[in-house]
Amino acid sequence: MASSISMDDNPAFARIPPWVKAKLRPIAIEKIQQVYDWIETECIPAERIYKAQLKADRWKTPAIIHELRNKAKAQGLFNLFLPNHFEESPGLTNLEYSCCAEIMGRVYWGAQTMNCHAPETGNIELLAKYCTPEQKKRWLFPLMNGDMSSAYSMTEPDVASSDATQIGIRMEITDKEVIINGRKLYGNCQYNDEMQLFILMGCSDPTNPNPWNRHTTLVVPARTPGLKQVRNLSIMGYDWAPEGHGEYIYENVRVPIENIILGPGRAFEIAQGRLGPGRIHHCMRLIGQAERAYELALVRCFEPRKKPRGKFIGEFDSNIERIADMRMTIDAMRQVVLNAADTMDLQGNKAGRYAIAQSKIMVPNALLKVIDEAMQMYGGQGLTQHTPLPEIWTYARFVRVADGPDSAHRHQVGRDQMKRANEYRARAEEYTKRYQELCKKWRLEPEEFWGIV
Amino acid sequence: MASSISMDDNPAFARIPPWVKAKLRPIAIEKIQQVYDWIETECIPAERIYKAQLKADRWKTPAIIHELRNKAKAQGLFNLFLPNHFEESPGLTNLEYSCCAEIMGRVYWGAQTMNCHAPETGNIELLAKYCTPEQKKRWLFPLMNGDMSSAYSMTEPDVASSDATQIGIRMEITDKEVIINGRKLYGNCQYNDEMQLFILMGCSDPTNPNPWNRHTTLVVPARTPGLKQVRNLSIMGYDWAPEGHGEYIYENVRVPIENIILGPGRAFEIAQGRLGPGRIHHCMRLIGQAERAYELALVRCFEPRKKPRGKFIGEFDSNIERIADMRMTIDAMRQVVLNAADTMDLQGNKAGRYAIAQSKIMVPNALLKVIDEAMQMYGGQGLTQHTPLPEIWTYARFVRVADGPDSAHRHQVGRDQMKRANEYRARAEEYTKRYQELCKKWRLEPEEFWGIV
Amino acid sequence: MASSISMDDNPAFARIPPWVKAKLRPIAIEKIQQVYDWIETECIPAERIYKAQLKADRWKTPAIIHELRNKAKAQGLFNLFLPNHFEESPGLTNLEYSCCAEIMGRVYWGAQTMNCHAPETGNIELLAKYCTPEQKKRWLFPLMNGDMSSAYSMTEPDVASSDATQIGIRMEITDKEVIINGRKLYGNCQYNDEMQLFILMGCSDPTNPNPWNRHTTLVVPARTPGLKQVRNLSIMGYDWAPEGHGEYIYENVRVPIENIILGPGRAFEIAQGRLGPGRIHHCMRLIGQAERAYELALVRCFEPRKKPRGKFIGEFDSNIERIADMRMTIDAMRQVVLNAADTMDLQGNKAGRYAIAQSKIMVPNALLKVIDEAMQMYGGQGLTQHTPLPEIWTYARFVRVADGPDSAHRHQVGRDQMKRANEYRARAEEYTKRYQELCKKWRLEPEEFWGIV
Amino acid sequence: MASSISMDDNPAFARIPPWVKAKLRPIAIEKIQQVYDWIETECIPAERIYKAQLKADRWKTPAIIHELRNKAKAQGLFNLFLPNHFEESPGLTNLEYSCCAEIMGRVYWGAQTMNCHAPETGNIELLAKYCTPEQKKRWLFPLMNGDMSSAYSMTEPDVASSDATQIGIRMEITDKEVIINGRKLYGNCQYNDEMQLFILMGCSDPTNPNPWNRHTTLVVPARTPGLKQVRNLSIMGYDWAPEGHGEYIYENVRVPIENIILGPGRAFEIAQGRLGPGRIHHCMRLIGQAERAYELALVRCFEPRKKPRGKFIGEFDSNIERIADMRMTIDAMRQVVLNAADTMDLQGNKAGRYAIAQSKIMVPNALLKVIDEAMQMYGGQGLTQHTPLPEIWTYARFVRVADGPDSAHRHQVGRDQMKRANEYRARAEEYTKRYQELCKKWRLEPEEFWGIV
Repeated sequence: MASSISMDDNPAFARIPPWVKAKLRPIAIEKIQQVYDWIETECIPAERIYKAQLKADRWKTPAIIHELRNKAKAQGLFNLFLPNHFEESPGLTNLEYSCCAEIMGRVYWGAQTMNCHAPETGNIELLAKYCTPEQKKRWLFPLMNGDMSSAYSMTEPDVASSDATQIGIRMEITDKEVIINGRKLYGNCQYNDEMQLFILMGCSDPTNPNPWNRHTTLVVPARTPGLKQVRNLSIMGYDWAPEGHGEYIYENVRVPIENIILGPGRAFEIAQGRLGPGRIHHCMRLIGQAERAYELALVRCFEPRKKPRGKFIGEFDSNIERIADMRMTIDAMRQVVLNAADTMDLQGNKAGRYAIAQSKIMVPNALLKVIDEAMQMYGGQGLTQHTPLPEIWTYARFVRVADGPDSAHRHQVGRDQMKRANEYRARAEEYTKRYQELCKKWRLEPEEFWGIV
Repeated sequence: MASSISMDDNPAFARIPPWVKAKLRPIAIEKIQQVYDWIETECIPAERIYKAQLKADRWKTPAIIHELRNKAKAQGLFNLFLPNHFEESPGLTNLEYSCCAEIMGRVYWGAQTMNCHAPETGNIELLAKYCTPEQKKRWLFPLMNGDMSSAYSMTEPDVASSDATQIGIRMEITDKEVIINGRKLYGNCQYNDEMQLFILMGCSDPTNPNPWNRHTTLVVPARTPGLKQVRNLSIMGYDWAPEGHGEYIYENVRVPIENIILGPGRAFEIAQGRLGPGRIHHCMRLIGQAERAYELALVRCFEPRKKPRGKFIGEFDSNIERIADMRMTIDAMRQVVLNAADTMDLQGNKAGRYAIAQSKIMVPNALLKVIDEAMQMYGGQGLTQHTPLPEIWTYARFVRVADGPDSAHRHQVGRDQMKRANEYRARAEEYTKRYQELCKKWRLEPEEFWGIV
Repeated sequence: MASSISMDDNPAFARIPPWVKAKLRPIAIEKIQQVYDWIETECIPAERIYKAQLKADRWKTPAIIHELRNKAKAQGLFNLFLPNHFEESPGLTNLEYSCCAEIMGRVYWGAQTMNCHAPETGNIELLAKYCTPEQKKRWLFPLMNGDMSSAYSMTEPDVASSDATQIGIRMEITDKEVIINGRKLYGNCQYNDEMQLFILMGCSDPTNPNPWNRHTTLVVPARTPGLKQVRNLSIMGYDWAPEGHGEYIYENVRVPIENIILGPGRAFEIAQGRLGPGRIHHCMRLIGQAERAYELALVRCFEPRKKPRGKFIGEFDSNIERIADMRMTIDAMRQVVLNAADTMDLQGNKAGRYAIAQSKIMVPNALLKVIDEAMQMYGGQGLTQHTPLPEIWTYARFVRVADGPDSAHRHQVGRDQMKRANEYRARAEEYTKRYQELCKKWRLEPEEFWGIV
Repeated sequence: MASSISMDDNPAFARIPPWVKAKLRPIAIEKIQQVYDWIETECIPAERIYKAQLKADRWKTPAIIHELRNKAKAQGLFNLFLPNHFEESPGLTNLEYSCCAEIMGRVYWGAQTMNCHAPETGNIELLAKYCTPEQKKRWLFPLMNGDMSSAYSMTEPDVASSDATQIGIRMEITDKEVIINGRKLYGNCQYNDEMQLFILMGCSDPTNPNPWNRHTTLVVPARTPGLKQVRNLSIMGYDWAPEGHGEYIYENVRVPIENIILGPGRAFEIAQGRLGPGRIHHCMRLIGQAERAYELALVRCFEPRKKPRGKFIGEFDSNIERIADMRMTIDAMRQVVLNAADTMDLQGNKAGRYAIAQSKIMVPNALLKVIDEAMQMYGGQGLTQHTPLPEIWTYARFVRVADGPDSAHRHQVGRDQMKRANEYRARAEEYTKRYQELCKKWRLEPEEFWGIV
């Protein structure tokens, strides 16, 4: 049954490519429309309200967020990211949810009003997949209900965390409890009292000959004794309040062994599936942010107060070309991410590995240039709090290192490709054989070349 | 009914994104497989045969092309590009044909063996759409049969041809004939005796107040008296034989008025629809060429004769990153073009205007870098005739100016976007109004900002 | 007489190109050495002291700055930028001072300890050049003595300030006083009590037919009634404390006419000479900052805690290539700026206009990439306060818009170049004439080409 | 004594930076003026004469070259590159000669008319430095007199030649002669009968434990039996006639042992010093070529036949910005090369190693973009023989791989830099110590950071 919503000339669907539109089921069309209306009506106009409330109390989630979360929950706009196998899931495909995620991304905290923000989405999936019913009751359901927030704590200051086997925070597992000592980075700040639990990956069996079996994942309640937040980590000068990024020391932190997820030594099993969809969501939200930057650039193009040499800056053909490049770049990046989402839908997350990495690498790099160009079109104003552009840029720059710097992913992609080289060398040899036969047929002397080309 | 051909682990389909695979009808799957086998088995191994034969007689179509054309025709591999409304059409969609076009593009002259090469494809469509039955008999059917070749003659040395209203070659229309005087560029070379007709756009009514009604399109047989080829135009040093690019002078060239297509003054009506699909084909063939470059780079990565400091160049992590970037760039560009083809299928050529321009601008620019990188991985050898890379690069560079330089298209895209600016300004005003309401509700003083942001 | 200081293997001189070294006079060699020792010994180790003190009182100049300023003054390291015609000037050339400025730039506030920071340097020059003895006593000498700080207030929110004729803040000049109404951006923050005076450019004669005679420059004491700071302007999220950037409203601000500099309507005369050397200083200090980023990248390359896949990141050849590119980019940019400084020395500031603009445009753009690469080599840590890299990046980004966005300067350069086109067209015609003569001599038919090439 | 030539407003000196002008001695000023006049009057207008003569006989040096060489010799414009220690040397410094080389580079074959072209310059220096008087008589003097041409034969198809220890062509040294077997690339073509000798580097002692002592350099007369040219190597489609690049097979080629230079096993000693100045010359000539491209772009900007939408393309502000970028890029690159030349003058070729590599890497990469932009400004015409731009581009692309691909040089630079890392780490530790002292003084708790930053 078709949706009663027409996608034609409908701004909620304006950026969705035809091939994606053709795949959207009525339920998805409804949700996209709802999300769009939500963001445009409830969130964008409230951006400065959020800031004003935050100013008053920097590490407290602003009241407007609480109100919007309640309202969104009532409207069925909560936890849209949840895959099918959840009872509460609206059942959107990765592709369909991606369209929602872009729109959510238009406001930095938009996804949060719908409980669709990082790192909750990944944490919820993880807990849902691997927890016992008892564990779910304690951690999963409150998270799904938006009653608390959580962190996924993996990066460490003392190792090359992009190589996760090096993770070194020490977990000593006794009969009854696990004793934790070490240091972690990122993960939301303890300063915010909604922050309730850390999903912690650490090393419980450092001498295990199999490096993939040395690590354990468990839950640490945020205010466990011995767990101390050293400081808030700023990102390009932003404290990222009211969630923030923390730096933590664990000194003889003790948690009951019931807090271990899946079992000791199974951290990599857990980590594996966690990041795929999350990366796509990050990328799509970033595209939403880039669209905001783009729209702001267009708005500036016809700002009547800013007419150097008497012309709108949108009348300078250099800016006409810039706007075209910005438009095309965002659209190309959307194709890349939507293809990754669709690949996961059609062939599974594992088959989507390359396309996910492609998104993770290409999207923030390309969009940083778009956002920077938009800042530049605002002149001096573009760098100040008078536009959201600096925050948008900073988010894009952060995504370039979040979940591993792009060069780590590029290596992974490149190494996979190198494995195909022999196939091409074999093919090239086939071509040469066939060429030699053709030479006979056409009475030509085979030309001698250097190596295979 | 499903095709008996499996696309899984099938190299013919390896680069086709899942969303496109899901749309391919059995007929398309068959054709793609056939085209793939054709190119891999018949064309790639024959590349040096082609060159050897061409060396013997530079301006004669090599014998192997004739042989392959006959064979392809017999196998139903002729004129695959033909849209549905042709009787002979295999009925492929733009999207389906694009998959074929990429594979054809793997060999520079591959499309030619299937009568799917530029400029014939565009010319055949034009003649089919606008000719009288009598005209079709004279020009269209021989072209479709591969019996001759043609040129579309638009660019002129004396005007800015990207602004087609400036086209100035003079056509004086009398009762019985048209007398032509002026100069044209490009269009295949007369040197090749298969070259039989020019589809010429000229100015027949220079004083008409409507600049879009001043021009006429007609057919000039290639050896009409007064029509003289001044020289072959080289492209980056290549003569592009045996077709080539010509530079022509028309001195009192006379053709009967029966050669006028559609009627005097209707050249723009004709020109309008011509270029869309052709640009997509160019781009897809170029992607095929870039895939060749990419495969050659991979081959080089494990060339045993070339191991600086004792390592395969594929073992240097800088090259691993380069290969990853090359792979991702090609794949992103393919998404862009396939989306354009699909947009034309779903919404018509006109609605596809932006996506076509996006392809035309982004694809050659991005692929030039990929191909250049592949050349660089071959060191000094990469620039010589020992690899096809210089010719691949040159083709990509040519596509960047063919059908108008990219800045002209970028302008078009940018100007279209600028028209949307007011919509965003209006929206921004809405946001502000709503913000002011929210301020009342939350008892906040509305913050004063500069202009709309 | 040669300096007793050897420049060989002396880190203070390591980055100075040989041609510059050869020009340094003994006095300059001494000063460079002194500045180097000062920065390395007194400033770099104090960076975190500065931050800690600032944390305690955000808008107060940290005590360590006061101490260092006194010490620097005592060591003859104050006001090094002062040109020869000042009594107190150490008499460094632009080239010599540039070498000092780079070293000062290694620490963000390094120049400030030597009273060589923006905007004081420009303001001091301006006041020295255009003030009456009485005015000098009030404003210039205290500034030179480091007793207060000042702002140059030009940019406005309501006009395109890169076109300075649009500057609109209203100055009504009566017999005795000037009444000012309007809005200004940038200029240090009033929050800091050392901030004592604004050098304000405004429009006093809006109907004057000559747009270059409409504006007046005058001094406004920072705490004049009616002058209100609306807010601190952040730059990419940084408040830039304790100086900061302010946004100001003038409501019937009254200053005595004695505060007018040079005379009513002469603001452009004053503005003209102000920016040249200042831009070079900005660029050189930025190079100093980029060198810090570069050194940090090298430090990271051999960080023993960060060895992905067991290798130092400095052992990956991709990073080896990156370090090379960073090194070469910084060095090329230094050549560009030093040439600009030298051009001013040899031919005057006016003749240096192109080279100054070249520096202003190229340097921040190129160095942003270097600094970004350094951040990326630090992974997630690179964006946090654990390195100074985000602040360095932000400073470079700021320089790209300070004193006008780079596109405005690029336009200026491009327009100047376009004026030379006719010269080249004329030359091309000469070549053709001579070619035709040569054709006669060599009995060749002159080839016909399109237009002049 | 000052030269009577004024450099002010003198086009011969227009692009020379002030710091270089200040160093030019009268003799250099005279030579630069002479070279400028020579190129502008004799060479540029003859470019098409050269092409016409070459068309008639592709592998014969055109008559006009012979004529110009004789004339140049008579005017004292021969062998200007010769360093001081030659009797015939005009005694120009590297810096002074570089100014000449740029101007020579304006015409592709300009340097050849003055016997200052590659590879002769490097070969002449080599022979002068290492030959016995007898050898000089046979090879050096005829080369210096322009009576014949030569090749330096190093690259091989079967090894990674950028790692010269791999060079494998076999030289068996007997009592009286050397027997050579193997394959070589590049080096001018035998087709041209002026081509008389190969300076060949080969492997005479493959089992020597020291890989730097295995190779020998000797002279092979071009028409020695057993030496066969397999083909001409094209570069991006250009045959580079009448010199060209050859591919050679040596089959039992015998030369007397008197042809060995310096002695068996001393090839690396010879190779070492050869390339420095030659790379700088290449770069400066390339800058001359880029200046031609730039001038052509300016000429196009005001081409009256090419006015899209009624405006000169030089009136579009996007092109104004492009011209500015082109201008600034060329000028920055010139600074880089002139600094390298000056460094060699002041500190010797060895100390100049970094600056030479910097030129070699940066210059062709940067200028390729400038030249490409110029081509693009000519639209379709830009790729054809109607402008020299494609040949200029091809030369720049060639320089990017000649004497080793840029990544090989980048590695060298990067590895050298990595050796400095420890110095910076040590310094960082010093900073920290001093910080801790300062903390005590200022009564602050030292902040704990991750590692050294």
